[in-house]
Amino acid sequence: MFETAELGRTVSKAEFRQAEQELHSRILQLQQKLRNSTRSLIIIVSGVEGAGKGEVVDRLNRWLDSRDVQTHAFWDETDEEIQRPRYWRYWRCLPARGSVAIMFGSWYTSPIVNLALGQSDQADLDEEINRINSLEQTLSVDGAIIVKLWFHLPRQIQKQRLESDAKVSKFKKSPLLEDFSKSYDAFLSVSERAIRLSDTGYAPWHIIEASDLRYRDIAMGSILVNCLQEALDDEQEPATNSPARPGHLLDDDDIIAGVLKSGASKTTVLDSVDLSQHLDPASYDEQLPALQEKLGQLAWQLFQQRRNTVMVFEGWDGAGKGSAIRRVTSAMDARLYRVIPIAAPSDEELAHHYLWRFWRHIPRAGHMTIYDRSWYGRVLVERVEKFASKQQWLRSYQEINEFEEQLVDHGTILCKFWIHIDQDEQLRRFKLRQQDPRKQHKITDEDWRNRDKWHAYEEAVNDLVAHTSTSRTPWTLMAGNDKKFARVQILKTICERMALASQ
Amino acid sequence: MFETAELGRTVSKAEFRQAEQELHSRILQLQQKLRNSTRSLIIIVSGVEGAGKGEVVDRLNRWLDSRDVQTHAFWDETDEEIQRPRYWRYWRCLPARGSVAIMFGSWYTSPIVNLALGQSDQADLDEEINRINSLEQTLSVDGAIIVKLWFHLPRQIQKQRLESDAKVSKFKKSPLLEDFSKSYDAFLSVSERAIRLSDTGYAPWHIIEASDLRYRDIAMGSILVNCLQEALDDEQEPATNSPARPGHLLDDDDIIAGVLKSGASKTTVLDSVDLSQHLDPASYDEQLPALQEKLGQLAWQLFQQRRNTVMVFEGWDGAGKGSAIRRVTSAMDARLYRVIPIAAPSDEELAHHYLWRFWRHIPRAGHMTIYDRSWYGRVLVERVEKFASKQQWLRSYQEINEFEEQLVDHGTILCKFWIHIDQDEQLRRFKLRQQDPRKQHKITDEDWRNRDKWHAYEEAVNDLVAHTSTSRTPWTLMAGNDKKFARVQILKTICERMALASQ
Repeated sequence: MFETAELGRTVSKAEFRQAEQELHSRILQLQQKLRNSTRSLIIIVSGVEGAGKGEVVDRLNRWLDSRDVQTHAFWDETDEEIQRPRYWRYWRCLPARGSVAIMFGSWYTSPIVNLALGQSDQADLDEEINRINSLEQTLSVDGAIIVKLWFHLPRQIQKQRLESDAKVSKFKKSPLLEDFSKSYDAFLSVSERAIRLSDTGYAPWHIIEASDLRYRDIAMGSILVNCLQEALDDEQEPATNSPARPGHLLDDDDIIAGVLKSGASKTTVLDSVDLSQHLDPASYDEQLPALQEKLGQLAWQLFQQRRNTVMVFEGWDGAGKGSAIRRVTSAMDARLYRVIPIAAPSDEELAHHYLWRFWRHIPRAGHMTIYDRSWYGRVLVERVEKFASKQQWLRSYQEINEFEEQLVDHGTILCKFWIHIDQDEQLRRFKLRQQDPRKQHKITDEDWRNRDKWHAYEEAVNDLVAHTSTSRTPWTLMAGNDKKFARVQILKTICERMALASQ
Repeated sequence: MFETAELGRTVSKAEFRQAEQELHSRILQLQQKLRNSTRSLIIIVSGVEGAGKGEVVDRLNRWLDSRDVQTHAFWDETDEEIQRPRYWRYWRCLPARGSVAIMFGSWYTSPIVNLALGQSDQADLDEEINRINSLEQTLSVDGAIIVKLWFHLPRQIQKQRLESDAKVSKFKKSPLLEDFSKSYDAFLSVSERAIRLSDTGYAPWHIIEASDLRYRDIAMGSILVNCLQEALDDEQEPATNSPARPGHLLDDDDIIAGVLKSGASKTTVLDSVDLSQHLDPASYDEQLPALQEKLGQLAWQLFQQRRNTVMVFEGWDGAGKGSAIRRVTSAMDARLYRVIPIAAPSDEELAHHYLWRFWRHIPRAGHMTIYDRSWYGRVLVERVEKFASKQQWLRSYQEINEFEEQLVDHGTILCKFWIHIDQDEQLRRFKLRQQDPRKQHKITDEDWRNRDKWHAYEEAVNDLVAHTSTSRTPWTLMAGNDKKFARVQILKTICERMALASQ
């Protein structure tokens, strides 16, 4: 989920100055409009430690006209608060119509911190998120505009940031910092779940890459302006229950791109894959058989342990999915796995929900199913070719997450690979295929047509990673320009996952 | 919640015969229409033991054309099922487009039974209901028509039913029966929560009174016909996310009334209040001071224990709310309670969500707030007078339930009274007020106008009980024709609740 907020986007000083002025005056105009409306504005500022939430709150207070703006920090509960139901402290801070509340920390803070520190369990978090969703829905249908901002930092940058903060001022260092940094993974995996479950149509999350301070502030401002504009333009009663629109990353990118001209925001996760990686033939010849032998043993071991495995192979046409799958299957006893190539659905499959055809092939205990293309077709080809409506593919992120969650809850080992190549490499392979009589059947007019939609697919893959790569069901983006490198890396990844599971 | 399914509705043999024929042919017509559509039908049959779920399933199979109908009973998981994620067993039973699945037992069964038997906790139930809601939404937006039927029996009738069942046939007696009957309360309170949390716009629950077998079957048939009609008339794509319409009891009553002509279904909970109850003046003079003394002591005791109390008084104009409240307050130290009379909201209150004005007055630890009229105005006067839109008051049931749940989760003692009188008694009291110069100010033109809306208020009270009377936040419907009886009963109820809480 957070991979798409680790792309190293930056904004230059000059660009910042111009955009900042523009945003400042837009925000003041919109605040005036808000003041004369029946709506209120709640800005929730959250994210990892070190992302500069305090600076963000300061910036917001500078941008907004301070009349009718209140900033609330939720520290320890007061005496008055402890004596009443928990949400009383939030209800008393809710802004009146026409005014603004900036929530520095919010109803999200304690459920996330408690679970990350092991003081509660996942069911507690889920229960609390239900409560939060209800509250946000209640406020939103009553006219509140809820803007939820999550500021993200990659591990390495967080570490640097915290260390330099600590040098500058002991005072600013929260006592929890040390724990947080240590439990970066725990905190992120909990946050990811909280965000995913509370990313609703009436109060969506906006994940902002906070490594570059200028990019962070411009992104935040652009998103705020857009949310206010949309809400205040809409003169009707606020939507009672707009369909869950899971995630807005790409939409946000477009919005930020409208403010910035440099295109910093239009990077996708695929740009972060280093396609120059390769493996020399000698190492390949040495590593491949060793890995295959290991895989064969692990498959038997997991059979005995009755653990099942599901593998998903996706990637560009010509990326080498088929040949990678063959390297996997040839390592294992044929009784242990099945390969399910996903082409057009059968009549019976069409008569059911699109996930039904994948549920059918879920392996029994100890077995493995390898999907050659998969349920992700919904958000790849069906999205790009418009076979599915936008509403259909948007909601399928959530459906897919729930499906995969059930797999891993059951104990299934799930590996998802996207094999990435660039356009030049694809062209080279297509031409090779055309020349080779044994491979001509593998290349069709459709493959050529798909090349024109390269950018649409890039966006689709970016969204797919943003929405369906979770800490429990991560995507592996595999550099595929060098086939040998890709095959060995895939086998390695699978062996690692299986070995971990079999312990 | 179940109070409105304990009204003793019956259907005569003659009426049954006619309605049954009508329903049978309507169902066959609609099934034919379903067959030619892209929709499928899932009927979930659940409810208390002894309600005749087996008979209902038989009846459904007789009514429907058996081609394209499958009945699924979910007993213990098979080997095949255990080896896969839990919902695999449900996915494999999902009906194809055009066909019907009758689920005898369903995804609801084990979460409810587990919690009722103490094998899981409430957070587990809530988590599972989230999963179920997602599944039902997934299926529903894909075209499935999900009809969820809950058959209810009052405790006494369940007991008789189970005993006579046991006499007729040892074979039909499930081994769980004995446990269930013992844990009737636990089972009902869990079911109530499960129903409440899964009563969504895309898959609402229908609670059916099952004491009279003929009424039960006609009610079921009428609801099924109506659901099919609505869904199949609607040629558009199914709503992706219709607003949660909590409960459909009254709508169902109207639908059933359309099939039956006797009006059996148009009874409301208020009809079940025995207004002939009274107390002679001598007993009143004896009991009142004793109860007041007890209440005074309990109030101090709860102050020391730092437990807070919230009381809600609602009722017809002239029912005696004010005089009942005075009997309560005069028993207690004035530092311990506040009475909040609810009239028109202030400017500041209007600028917030309608619940904000009630949150403000939530008492501190050890204190009590008595609301003279309350947040229920939203679903009473605002509903009847159309101050709130249907969507607004419909969604407020859920908002109110969540608000009250937070109170009781915090440990607040919550008492909710509806003081009931009949129209004649109200008229008598209004006339008395007009004649008494000290009371003339208490009667206005509005009071007279409200009398014309008696039936609308009856429906509103029925819905209010159906939706907001839960095992943790029950309504007390108090017979108020005899004021003395009502006052003593109210004091008794309060003392009992407080005494229980202070233990």
